Amino acid sequence: MILHGYFRSTASWRVRIALNLKGLVAEQVFHHLRKGEQRAPEYLALNPQGLVPALVTDDGAVLTQSLAICEYLDALHPEPALLPADPLEQARVRAVAQAIACDIHPVQNLKVLQKLRDLGLAEEAVQAWAASVIDEGLEAVDRLLADTAGPFAFGAAPTLADIALVPQLGNARRFNVALRWPRLLAIEAACLELDAFRSAAPGAQSDAE
Amino acid sequence: MILHGYFRSTASWRVRIALNLKGLVAEQVFHHLRKGEQRAPEYLALNPQGLVPALVTDDGAVLTQSLAICEYLDALHPEPALLPADPLEQARVRAVAQAIACDIHPVQNLKVLQKLRDLGLAEEAVQAWAASVIDEGLEAVDRLLADTAGPFAFGAAPTLADIALVPQLGNARRFNVALRWPRLLAIEAACLELDAFRSAAPGAQSDAE
Repeated sequence: MILHGYFRSTASWRVRIALNLKGLVAEQVFHHLRKGEQRAPEYLALNPQGLVPALVTDDGAVLTQSLAICEYLDALHPEPALLPADPLEQARVRAVAQAIACDIHPVQNLKVLQKLRDLGLAEEAVQAWAASVIDEGLEAVDRLLADTAGPFAFGAAPTLADIALVPQLGNARRFNVALRWPRLLAIEAACLELDAFRSAAPGAQSDAE
Repeated sequence: MILHGYFRSTASWRVRIALNLKGLVAEQVFHHLRKGEQRAPEYLALNPQGLVPALVTDDGAVLTQSLAICEYLDALHPEPALLPADPLEQARVRAVAQAIACDIHPVQNLKVLQKLRDLGLAEEAVQAWAASVIDEGLEAVDRLLADTAGPFAFGAAPTLADIALVPQLGNARRFNVALRWPRLLAIEAACLELDAFRSAAPGAQSDAE
């Protein structure tokens, strides 16, 4: 398998965690997003969205969208499970992952922030945009997790929700968001006890700057 | 079941299609997004994200995030299936749904456009933002579907991909995006042969203006 990614991309980071949790190894190919390498014709032929990650399977199939890739890995390698078996619990885990992957990350990613700059917004306003999207989004995630058991987002083992949360907390720090959610930080601490999470972090990647 | 939604919300529209395809009936409660009713304390207690849809099950459980809700309905009522059985095909369907639900819709929704207005952007620039996000996103979706069989996005029956696509095409029209993708329009036409899609449209809802 080949994982096309970028050290700092939270979506790539999610897939790195999932691979690690499953004990799978993928060759990593890094595309420097700030240099626009994800818009090179060869990469667009692989992923027409021009986004990372993309996972190329051993059979040469190309998969895109981090959550879809994680669920694919989960289907092929069921242990340890990334989703609970119960449909209602499954829906709650997916909802938290999507609250991050749909409603926080795409609204504060590199592409959107560049669009804001292109519209003439001052850098201060651009940074404030990202911070406010993350702050508001994590506040909602914290409330969505108000009734769940720890130490992970949904109990005794990490799920797709933790896989989405840990990278988003990383982004929160990059944008100087005050991490005012003890529960979210406790979940992150539990995750970082695991090498699967630690070795997926941006700083541990070979393209880290 | 109670579906909390808004006639024009594409995320609510997706869940309406899924319910219809499954032959399920939910009581519909509408929240007027332009009047900010989704931020009323009673609604925030239900869904801390302050977004529609939210589905309240017969047991009183509250589910959020449209794609998670659709997959929940699919797990409980497997026929007709909203996802193929094969994990690779499943991943492709989910990727298209997420390319829309993560990378198009949240970047052009009411909330983001209001943020742009609050930053002093002229209405023309706000509309152009939405149109360009949709145009670029649908172009990628069209390419992701380049090798799939019709008449639906993934063959002979509608899936989660069609459920995401049809509402997004509706939004494209609202923002005057030139619909330059014959394949996407053919998929939409196939969907609109089905009453499940027709009766889920914004114009068919009791809160339509």
